[in-house]
Amino acid sequence: MQKKIGVIWGDCSSVEIVEQAVNVLKTIEKKYSHSFEYIDIAMGGQAIDLYGDPLPSHELDKCLSCDSVLLGAIGGPKWEGLPGEKRPEKGLLRLRAGMGLYSNNRPAKIWPQLADASPLKKEIVDKGIDFIIVRELIGGVYFGNHETHEENGELKAIDSMPYSEHEIRRIGKIGFETAMKRNKKLCMVDKANVLDTSRLWRKVMDELKKEYPEVEYSVMFVDNCAMQICKNPSQFDVIVTENMFGDILSDEASEITGSIGMIPSSSLGDGTRGLYEPIHGSAPDIAGKDIVNPIACILSAAMMLQYSFDLKEEAKDIEKAVNAVLNQGYRTQDMMSENMKLVGCKQMGQLIVNEI
Amino acid sequence: MQKKIGVIWGDCSSVEIVEQAVNVLKTIEKKYSHSFEYIDIAMGGQAIDLYGDPLPSHELDKCLSCDSVLLGAIGGPKWEGLPGEKRPEKGLLRLRAGMGLYSNNRPAKIWPQLADASPLKKEIVDKGIDFIIVRELIGGVYFGNHETHEENGELKAIDSMPYSEHEIRRIGKIGFETAMKRNKKLCMVDKANVLDTSRLWRKVMDELKKEYPEVEYSVMFVDNCAMQICKNPSQFDVIVTENMFGDILSDEASEITGSIGMIPSSSLGDGTRGLYEPIHGSAPDIAGKDIVNPIACILSAAMMLQYSFDLKEEAKDIEKAVNAVLNQGYRTQDMMSENMKLVGCKQMGQLIVNEI
Ligand SMILES: CC(C)[C@H](C(=O)O)[C@@H](O)C(=O)O
Ligand SMILES: CC(C)[C@H](C(=O)O)[C@@H](O)C(=O)O
Repeated sequence: MQKKIGVIWGDCSSVEIVEQAVNVLKTIEKKYSHSFEYIDIAMGGQAIDLYGDPLPSHELDKCLSCDSVLLGAIGGPKWEGLPGEKRPEKGLLRLRAGMGLYSNNRPAKIWPQLADASPLKKEIVDKGIDFIIVRELIGGVYFGNHETHEENGELKAIDSMPYSEHEIRRIGKIGFETAMKRNKKLCMVDKANVLDTSRLWRKVMDELKKEYPEVEYSVMFVDNCAMQICKNPSQFDVIVTENMFGDILSDEASEITGSIGMIPSSSLGDGTRGLYEPIHGSAPDIAGKDIVNPIACILSAAMMLQYSFDLKEEAKDIEKAVNAVLNQGYRTQDMMSENMKLVGCKQMGQLIVNEI
Repeated sequence: MQKKIGVIWGDCSSVEIVEQAVNVLKTIEKKYSHSFEYIDIAMGGQAIDLYGDPLPSHELDKCLSCDSVLLGAIGGPKWEGLPGEKRPEKGLLRLRAGMGLYSNNRPAKIWPQLADASPLKKEIVDKGIDFIIVRELIGGVYFGNHETHEENGELKAIDSMPYSEHEIRRIGKIGFETAMKRNKKLCMVDKANVLDTSRLWRKVMDELKKEYPEVEYSVMFVDNCAMQICKNPSQFDVIVTENMFGDILSDEASEITGSIGMIPSSSLGDGTRGLYEPIHGSAPDIAGKDIVNPIACILSAAMMLQYSFDLKEEAKDIEKAVNAVLNQGYRTQDMMSENMKLVGCKQMGQLIVNEI
């Protein structure tokens, strides 16, 4: 199979993990006789340094000419003082919108080898943590109007949070379809006692649910959900929610698995072209030290093979290799525990390559 | 001391807890020779049933004529289908705004007797959980414009999230003042990489912090904060944040203490008149069964004595009584564990009254 893969090297320690993920992809390429072309793309801090813009249109165009895009993570203290439009994060938001990636899938799953790293009690973890948050990614307050103006002699800022029916319907469908492939439970999270957008979500979801009679559908307020994720995470199968709530809840959900350095994510739109990236950030504090965990990025590459290129066997191969290396007791610093073997980013990548 | 106390009996199981809290207040009244007048106020579902409006202006006026107001909790399935303006919650929001209560204080604190009930691991709990979330209560998306209209043949909803400098400054001050009375650490939580309102919060807080050089001030993104509350809650002393983030984070924070049935809250404005209520909801599923935990409501009454009436000794007296009853092993169902003595709502209230 011939594919063009966009590679966003990202900022700070991101470069180190992307390097390992690309090594893994190259290994898969050889083993299965595929031919992947890697296109370097600058986005975030790197693009600001190069072009004074976190996502110049020529870089977005490159992404759109690829079959899929792999990303590490962006941002860092160097770019923190910049105004809204010039921040690294703005590049990511524009990339999501420019590629039409409305559906962000964030699995929250315990790796048995790392179960001890969860901040939750064993009795809660033992009931199982294995759910997916389907987050709407290019609507809501992230993409509404933002403005700051003077009023009565002081500044006033207003962010607006818009949602229209078709935006809700397309992500709602992904929620139901995801549930159908899993345990057929879908929970929609909102704040319908306060927000008009949430009430519109309820209306559209109520219409959609008729098309999925097998799915056990429920609704939950976001404040309650933030509690339930700590209290009783085993109740969840698939959660679908709007952009901002999805941001907050998926971070909480990844934390309770105790393995945030292990969690990949996919962002997809209507076609098969996607953006694949770890859940974690660019970890500026440990950049250049060869201690960052490359596994979330490597698993993101695996997700790309599976969901964008339909290369299921290849994806499984990577996951098995990761599993094997963990079983052999190798750990990066972030997941280190007693009696395990501490390795750096490069060595972890190499171990996984060797397994493949 | 003579005081007029507004009493909102609330909906579902709320009535049962308010009854116990009023009994406790009456006991304090006698013991310390105060004279409290209790004014019944209808708000929420009860007001909808009586007047077709969750907070008629005559009921708000009654609140404004009182020295302070005690509330249980409102809402329930009976009123769920109603349109936005007619919901029980709207009464609460209008009450907060009408009384000018911009500062909501929500303590997250482990009760040593209930430490086992936390969903977090013992090693995390043992480091200590004792922080306060200061939530802005009458601004942001709760009080912005909400609208739904037709556009391009479909419905579109927009919620707007406004903040102006004076709204941020007054709550920011409360944040710093609260930190000064505690361990002098203040963390402001926002989403400044996305929201204009958050960037305005940063500007105002940066100005304010100069007036509090002793306070160690930091900022954190809301998604990261949702993780940190699970991972390392002992890092927090005081968190200050906008309305919606405060809603989500304070629920998560109360959950990790494992004692949500024990957590009171205060809402204050510029004067001493406040609204005091438990963090938990109206628990419709257990209404009328005499099993709801009245302690959060009783402790809310204690907070009222302390913060609105400056009756510190009386407040301490109530807290001590609660502590003693817990030490004697009495528990309501929600906090029941092995070898403890199960009691109902009424008996729990009576035990606390007896202690006083
Ligand atoms: C970097 C930031 C804008 C982004 C978001 O909030 O979407 C990040 O937190 C994420 O979740 O991918
Ligand atoms: C009932 C609801 C509107 C309210 C809120 O979101 O403020 C509640 O969740 C709370 O936190 O007091």
